[in-house]
Amino acid sequence: MTEPPVSRFPVPDLAALPDDIRARIEAVQDKAGFVPNVFFTLAHRPDEFRAFFAYHDALMEKDGGLSLAEREMIVVATSAANQCQYCVIAHGAILRVRAKDPLIADQLAANYRKADITPRQKAMLDFALKVSGPAWAVNEADFAALEGHGFTREDAWDIAAIAAFFGLSNRMANVTEMRPNAEFYTLGR
Amino acid sequence: MTEPPVSRFPVPDLAALPDDIRARIEAVQDKAGFVPNVFFTLAHRPDEFRAFFAYHDALMEKDGGLSLAEREMIVVATSAANQCQYCVIAHGAILRVRAKDPLIADQLAANYRKADITPRQKAMLDFALKVSGPAWAVNEADFAALEGHGFTREDAWDIAAIAAFFGLSNRMANVTEMRPNAEFYTLGR
Amino acid sequence: MTEPPVSRFPVPDLAALPDDIRARIEAVQDKAGFVPNVFFTLAHRPDEFRAFFAYHDALMEKDGGLSLAEREMIVVATSAANQCQYCVIAHGAILRVRAKDPLIADQLAANYRKADITPRQKAMLDFALKVSGPAWAVNEADFAALEGHGFTREDAWDIAAIAAFFGLSNRMANVTEMRPNAEFYTLGR
Amino acid sequence: MTEPPVSRFPVPDLAALPDDIRARIEAVQDKAGFVPNVFFTLAHRPDEFRAFFAYHDALMEKDGGLSLAEREMIVVATSAANQCQYCVIAHGAILRVRAKDPLIADQLAANYRKADITPRQKAMLDFALKVSGPAWAVNEADFAALEGHGFTREDAWDIAAIAAFFGLSNRMANVTEMRPNAEFYTLGR
Amino acid sequence: MTEPPVSRFPVPDLAALPDDIRARIEAVQDKAGFVPNVFFTLAHRPDEFRAFFAYHDALMEKDGGLSLAEREMIVVATSAANQCQYCVIAHGAILRVRAKDPLIADQLAANYRKADITPRQKAMLDFALKVSGPAWAVNEADFAALEGHGFTREDAWDIAAIAAFFGLSNRMANVTEMRPNAEFYTLGR
Amino acid sequence: MTEPPVSRFPVPDLAALPDDIRARIEAVQDKAGFVPNVFFTLAHRPDEFRAFFAYHDALMEKDGGLSLAEREMIVVATSAANQCQYCVIAHGAILRVRAKDPLIADQLAANYRKADITPRQKAMLDFALKVSGPAWAVNEADFAALEGHGFTREDAWDIAAIAAFFGLSNRMANVTEMRPNAEFYTLGR
Repeated sequence: MTEPPVSRFPVPDLAALPDDIRARIEAVQDKAGFVPNVFFTLAHRPDEFRAFFAYHDALMEKDGGLSLAEREMIVVATSAANQCQYCVIAHGAILRVRAKDPLIADQLAANYRKADITPRQKAMLDFALKVSGPAWAVNEADFAALEGHGFTREDAWDIAAIAAFFGLSNRMANVTEMRPNAEFYTLGR
Repeated sequence: MTEPPVSRFPVPDLAALPDDIRARIEAVQDKAGFVPNVFFTLAHRPDEFRAFFAYHDALMEKDGGLSLAEREMIVVATSAANQCQYCVIAHGAILRVRAKDPLIADQLAANYRKADITPRQKAMLDFALKVSGPAWAVNEADFAALEGHGFTREDAWDIAAIAAFFGLSNRMANVTEMRPNAEFYTLGR
Repeated sequence: MTEPPVSRFPVPDLAALPDDIRARIEAVQDKAGFVPNVFFTLAHRPDEFRAFFAYHDALMEKDGGLSLAEREMIVVATSAANQCQYCVIAHGAILRVRAKDPLIADQLAANYRKADITPRQKAMLDFALKVSGPAWAVNEADFAALEGHGFTREDAWDIAAIAAFFGLSNRMANVTEMRPNAEFYTLGR
Repeated sequence: MTEPPVSRFPVPDLAALPDDIRARIEAVQDKAGFVPNVFFTLAHRPDEFRAFFAYHDALMEKDGGLSLAEREMIVVATSAANQCQYCVIAHGAILRVRAKDPLIADQLAANYRKADITPRQKAMLDFALKVSGPAWAVNEADFAALEGHGFTREDAWDIAAIAAFFGLSNRMANVTEMRPNAEFYTLGR
Repeated sequence: MTEPPVSRFPVPDLAALPDDIRARIEAVQDKAGFVPNVFFTLAHRPDEFRAFFAYHDALMEKDGGLSLAEREMIVVATSAANQCQYCVIAHGAILRVRAKDPLIADQLAANYRKADITPRQKAMLDFALKVSGPAWAVNEADFAALEGHGFTREDAWDIAAIAAFFGLSNRMANVTEMRPNAEFYTLGR
Repeated sequence: MTEPPVSRFPVPDLAALPDDIRARIEAVQDKAGFVPNVFFTLAHRPDEFRAFFAYHDALMEKDGGLSLAEREMIVVATSAANQCQYCVIAHGAILRVRAKDPLIADQLAANYRKADITPRQKAMLDFALKVSGPAWAVNEADFAALEGHGFTREDAWDIAAIAAFFGLSNRMANVTEMRPNAEFYTLGR
């Protein structure tokens, strides 16, 4: 069987990309040793690529009450609910690396309620899943529940924004049939 | 009754904002005569503000197979499904102005299947609603249905990306309890 | 574009209607200045017309613990959940008039949980939405919640009966593709 | 165990009821040998009682393309979907009598798709269940499917109106906890 | 009308069955006076037949905190939620016999929340329905609720296992279109 | 952190188990090098243990139109829909081994519609997921779709029975909080 395509849409040639996008992709290549397919898929639309990664970086690589591993937990749990193959597999790998835990990602993807995480982290994911799903029903009681576990209002924004942003990402990955790189499956195991 | 707040989160003072953000807000003020509350609400997080509006502009103010009014139809119909008060009311106003039709927004918000739009526009919204909801089930038949109405694959990306982006926007508006400005209710009627 | 029809079913000629139905329609015309399309649509079946409006009047124009505006709030919120274009637009207009509030109807139609209403009114709508949806699960706790906001058992019947009656109305409007009159869109704004 | 009450709400004394309501109840008593509890439950609100039974009679006791047994099939199948104990049990009995079939009601209540009915009757119930549930999505294809089985547009109205009216009835029965009379359980077996 | 078939799949001849299976069927025949169709339907696959009835007996005919009638209540309520005609009708009959109550089965099948059962039995069915549906969300609070009504952890296993096993049974009955014997409809009334 | 328990219920000592159960567990230990926790968890109830594994073997280790790997595909895809951590992780491992494909299990668990499988296998999983979910709606069209891909009616029974049996298994695993052995996470990668 020939390798299935990276995306249902055209994937641009690296050389033909605008300089800033090519530079970002090459930096990832240097650091990770391969280029995750989300970069090639979204490069089909340079302006959307720039906005997407600016948003991603603003949410995933900042300081705050959530650790980097906890941010990835939100991505894996909400992406599983959205049945996004790319994000579950790619961010599952990142989560294993960041949490230094080879089991956590598969547990969260199957059922976060039964995963080896703390009650505080379960409360974080309860909120993330509500934002990812029936966000219209989010109310004061949800914020109070977070506060009961020591999260601040700024943490609540972070959780919500990560769930919301990856809801966008999940939808684009499902529509483009974005294919996870083979490298992700074994990373951090 | 005192006016309810613009957002559940702190709203920054215009003077205290970074120059680029203040400039963008002042430009909107000059053009529209008022500042939509989404600008104040998201300015609480300058980096996210920049990414959000860069994404917005990349999707909503470009050329392509969809008219500007059709782009707003997608926003109104998917935001209604997500029960997003801010987006239904604010983008309903923009849709009335762009479509030069005082009735269209209320019809779409209630039930797009019964609105005074073309079969082609209903097919566009069928796809947008699927992306906004069970995007995991999007398949070749959905693309074929769009093509049957003359939409290209690039149009399909546009529809999907708008639905996905406003899914993010709807979730942030519901979590922040972003309040629509009173001006929107009567604009374009 | 020619005006779409009032109903998917035949609409009778006013002159051909039984006297009592014609009289009722003329009275509405005199008072409102136009005849809401629900009268023409349902007049296709005179016996059902009579029962429908007798039921309507028994619920909507009586004294009791709910104000006339609150009764219309129930109609707008449950009709939005049932995606009934006619009822959302027509009763949204009546609600604006009765509540003397130009913003309330659009807020309730989008997401009643975020509307500018009192906690007591939110409890009323929580119950109405449960009756409109999973009424099989209504239980003692629901009645207790209403009582906690000062509603009597008779008020509970009123709320339930309005939600149930407009569930019928919403279904008939969706099946007949009943078209809201253009007058409703601007009434009370 | 003492007999549970007929209704969660007060049940009026027969002697204290308005003449027309008492006469209707006595007529039922004479014909059936007992008074179905729906009469006592709704008599708590005389005006609603009158409108309810006028609507009922307009839909259930008329001529047309649907037999009386088929009308009861719609009631049983939609009431089962709405988990209405009173209507499933009371109208199940009426269906057994009208269809002269002791098995049909239990089959329809459990799963109408597997019942011993004709393909035409299954199409009728497919439409009734759609009206009872997601009526907002009813479209031309639904009417065409009915016509493919020989139903007229007037039959479609009948099916829809019965499903819509018993949706109201199911909701009132669930809210009032209306209790089916013991007589219904064995009638027509 | 000729009698519809017992199963969508081939039904073996009693004489051709392995001795142990024929013996079990004959024992049922001797005791009940007829052979429930589930025996003929599953005998199409002797190994699955043996495992199915071994599982059934392990759950339904053992001692423990649940009475035999309560075990059948679980079957009827979960089978109704799974729209399984065979199990609702056949186990409804067994429930009437075991509970010595001619009304209980029809009440539970329509809406167990409104049936004439004890609060303890409602708590048992709340748990059974959660296991039959969203079992992934079962948590400590569910076990605590059962304990509040005097159920042990072993009782909780019994309730869960019966709900889970009949979920299997309901699915096989719906796929095979297993037909309830006419005898079940009147048994125990 | 101490290792979380294998099950929420008591786990028997191997030495204390009945001979046949101990023998089965030791045989698995010899073959796999470890004892999957499902054996310890279910051994709490010896009769249910015997019926469970008899059922399992009757479905999973027989000849027929489905390969052993395809049987495991059904397990992984339906267990993912039921959010069963144990089955997704344990049977994901078995699937990788049987399909000699290190990527297939993670793809199927996230979204089988996007996995690298054949159209015939997708049709198999479409049917399995319908049986696992709304089995009440299975109809002739589902069997015809399977036949269009070359499946026999006996294959259809196999697919349905595997989906139904693992629906039982998923429910027991979620209720017992059955913990996947660490060995499964890396097997076959």
